[in-house]
Amino acid sequence: MLGKSCAVLGGTGSLGFGLVLRLARAGHEVIIGSRSRENAEAAAERARTVLAEHGIDAGKIRGDENPAAAATADIIAVTVPYAQQQALLAAVTDHLRGKIVIDATVPLMPPKVGTVQLPEGGSAAVAAQALLGEDVRLVSALQNVAADKLQSLEPLECDVLVTGDDRDACTEVVGLIAGLGMEAYYAGPLANSVAAEALTSLLITINRQFKCQAGIRITGVK
Amino acid sequence: MLGKSCAVLGGTGSLGFGLVLRLARAGHEVIIGSRSRENAEAAAERARTVLAEHGIDAGKIRGDENPAAAATADIIAVTVPYAQQQALLAAVTDHLRGKIVIDATVPLMPPKVGTVQLPEGGSAAVAAQALLGEDVRLVSALQNVAADKLQSLEPLECDVLVTGDDRDACTEVVGLIAGLGMEAYYAGPLANSVAAEALTSLLITINRQFKCQAGIRITGVK
Repeated sequence: MLGKSCAVLGGTGSLGFGLVLRLARAGHEVIIGSRSRENAEAAAERARTVLAEHGIDAGKIRGDENPAAAATADIIAVTVPYAQQQALLAAVTDHLRGKIVIDATVPLMPPKVGTVQLPEGGSAAVAAQALLGEDVRLVSALQNVAADKLQSLEPLECDVLVTGDDRDACTEVVGLIAGLGMEAYYAGPLANSVAAEALTSLLITINRQFKCQAGIRITGVK
Repeated sequence: MLGKSCAVLGGTGSLGFGLVLRLARAGHEVIIGSRSRENAEAAAERARTVLAEHGIDAGKIRGDENPAAAATADIIAVTVPYAQQQALLAAVTDHLRGKIVIDATVPLMPPKVGTVQLPEGGSAAVAAQALLGEDVRLVSALQNVAADKLQSLEPLECDVLVTGDDRDACTEVVGLIAGLGMEAYYAGPLANSVAAEALTSLLITINRQFKCQAGIRITGVK
């Protein structure tokens, strides 16, 4: 897995930034993508500082505009809010062909983020695949991980459900995520992404009751 | 919670039978419902035998046809396969008014049970509420528990997501399930049931990979 070049589009946001930190720590080259190159570069500087505080050399983080970030990466993660997902994908589609794209989009529709409101067709990832076409190796993952916990760099008590129609791409993503301090499980075709996407509203409801940051763990496997 | 009278419609099936055993062990009166009174009574006899083998007196289990079982119970659990859910509910609706109904239906559509195939509207429980009307206190739960593990009577490494629009009914069901050897969490309105329903296909996919019976646990709460 070492030596991969990973773009995190929306890497200036809280979930994306946590992913940036963990990817860099694992030895991957990371390009933070944002609509603003300046913001992306500032986030890269911030990530280098955080990692240096943890004693980790992270020279391989840089920032760029989303299309340029996507163009140079082997693997592209999409970590923008749902309202921005389609516009972002439309802006970078040409740079995604043949590549693995990890879509972490949760179709939350504020203000009722504790209530599942299924998008047209049920799944944001399925909609993304339809927009991108079949030559993009779309994999859905990371919907249920709390951003704060991802940024903490601690081992996570939250497993990752990985779904997608390209089985080899899913296997690669399971391996990539396993290197970031989380357990990841292949959990079926992209149609199954709806479960992980919808589950986030249930976890938000639990968080509100218990003033916590809930996650899920798959039990009974090992 | 003691002293409740619980009907388990479909209690002759594997999930329902596990629920019967655990409800009876917890001291509840249990009426197993089936389309056939004879089958229901045979299952009650079987349940008494299993519990006696565990040293548990379970005199309060009996069997009856589904409508009669529903008529006499305070709380009614629905544990039939998806293909039978609507017909069953239509046959017992009049006996459910004002009562708590626990719907455990998973909208699996064989043969592709490892693939999420959302029913019309997304959720089997939401469809059930629409059929039954608002004076039935519908609560969705228990979609992710393996039937074999439920029957085992061992403490379960699988938490239960409880959803419903009647918050008091949800609280009562959370308490009921907590008495059965599982953790249960209120997880939002009935619309959120889709996540628990859909998640089962992901667990089936994981089961097939690892030759296991996977469940979920909510982490980060306590």
